Amino acid sequence: MAKEVILLDKWASMYGMRVRIALAEKGIKYESKEEDFNNKSDLLLQSNPIHKKIPVLIHNGKSISESGIIVQYIDEVWNHKNPFFSSDPYERAQARFWVDYIDKKVFGTWMKVWLSKGEEYEEAKKELISIFKTLEETLGDKSFYGGETFGYLDIGLIPFYSWFYTFETYGNFKFEVETPKLVAWGKRCIEKESVSKSLPDENKIYDYVVAGKKALGLR
Amino acid sequence: MAKEVILLDKWASMYGMRVRIALAEKGIKYESKEEDFNNKSDLLLQSNPIHKKIPVLIHNGKSISESGIIVQYIDEVWNHKNPFFSSDPYERAQARFWVDYIDKKVFGTWMKVWLSKGEEYEEAKKELISIFKTLEETLGDKSFYGGETFGYLDIGLIPFYSWFYTFETYGNFKFEVETPKLVAWGKRCIEKESVSKSLPDENKIYDYVVAGKKALGLR
Repeated sequence: MAKEVILLDKWASMYGMRVRIALAEKGIKYESKEEDFNNKSDLLLQSNPIHKKIPVLIHNGKSISESGIIVQYIDEVWNHKNPFFSSDPYERAQARFWVDYIDKKVFGTWMKVWLSKGEEYEEAKKELISIFKTLEETLGDKSFYGGETFGYLDIGLIPFYSWFYTFETYGNFKFEVETPKLVAWGKRCIEKESVSKSLPDENKIYDYVVAGKKALGLR
Repeated sequence: MAKEVILLDKWASMYGMRVRIALAEKGIKYESKEEDFNNKSDLLLQSNPIHKKIPVLIHNGKSISESGIIVQYIDEVWNHKNPFFSSDPYERAQARFWVDYIDKKVFGTWMKVWLSKGEEYEEAKKELISIFKTLEETLGDKSFYGGETFGYLDIGLIPFYSWFYTFETYGNFKFEVETPKLVAWGKRCIEKESVSKSLPDENKIYDYVVAGKKALGLR
């Protein structure tokens, strides 16, 4: 039974966290395999030959890649509880739009904050804050992006909450000041066991990122 | 009735074509508004303030952006005929994966072929061919990506068929030689009225691209 669902993962990955949360929401038991990016497993290379990236969900021997697509797959296969989507097609399209926005914007902008200096750094930092302000506006006064329930867009964004401390430390700003409603939303999400057990400690992520920069010969 | 569905579009856009085909497959009447990229309409800026890009579908006053998301929306709202997806969640995930692959790979690589020279051009050209070879392999011996039926991935890829002449002319290769099965697939798709009436003439696209390069002061 445990062999039926395998997740190729990396503890610090926001995208891996999405899949962990989705599986936890559905109550699915699975085997997790931690990947080493410097020495990718044969299983990863075989199961995602196109992108060679985690997360990969292997379900009964079939592989699914790309976190948003995996989360939708999980919702469709295990549809007995906690649906991730509204029954309204417009709401579903909106949730997909914003997860796509996150995928296009957040990580790339964060990398610039992390790696650039001077004017480029200042620009990237402004953009990172602006992205999260846009996401805060999209939440509005709702409890969750899914309204009263925790849905696809909540799953898509909440992993970044565990990176907030790293983002704001490198970006020299405070989420509490810039996007207080988003922080309150994050606190609401983390009360859910599916989230709290899927997100690593923010200090552990920060240490990992600091070590990563040193390993690149930067500081 | 015609006012109920509005498509903000640009005739040469692969992404606009996807939506045109999807609407035609479902038999939906709509009003098309052609956008001028150099002078975007207020309606476009208001209905897609985040990306400010076509296509945008406006349905009963609500806007949906991003072509893949729009096509899924159309399938969910008008579910009375021609479903775009298999009933199998794994097949659905695969179709989504490959449309995402097209979105990540094709246009950016084509832009490099179009705009670069020397070694960068040679690399980009090789990569463009390799992307289409990968897509050909994915088709295998099936009639359509959806198997016997024309589905989400067919809709996602077929617009590029109208750009093949432009790609191969600038890339100095022949799709007929590199990916003959993909060309045969394209011919099968174009026999469908929903496709033939949604794709512009390949020579018109080529002339548009030549003119575009001149307008950039390149040749």
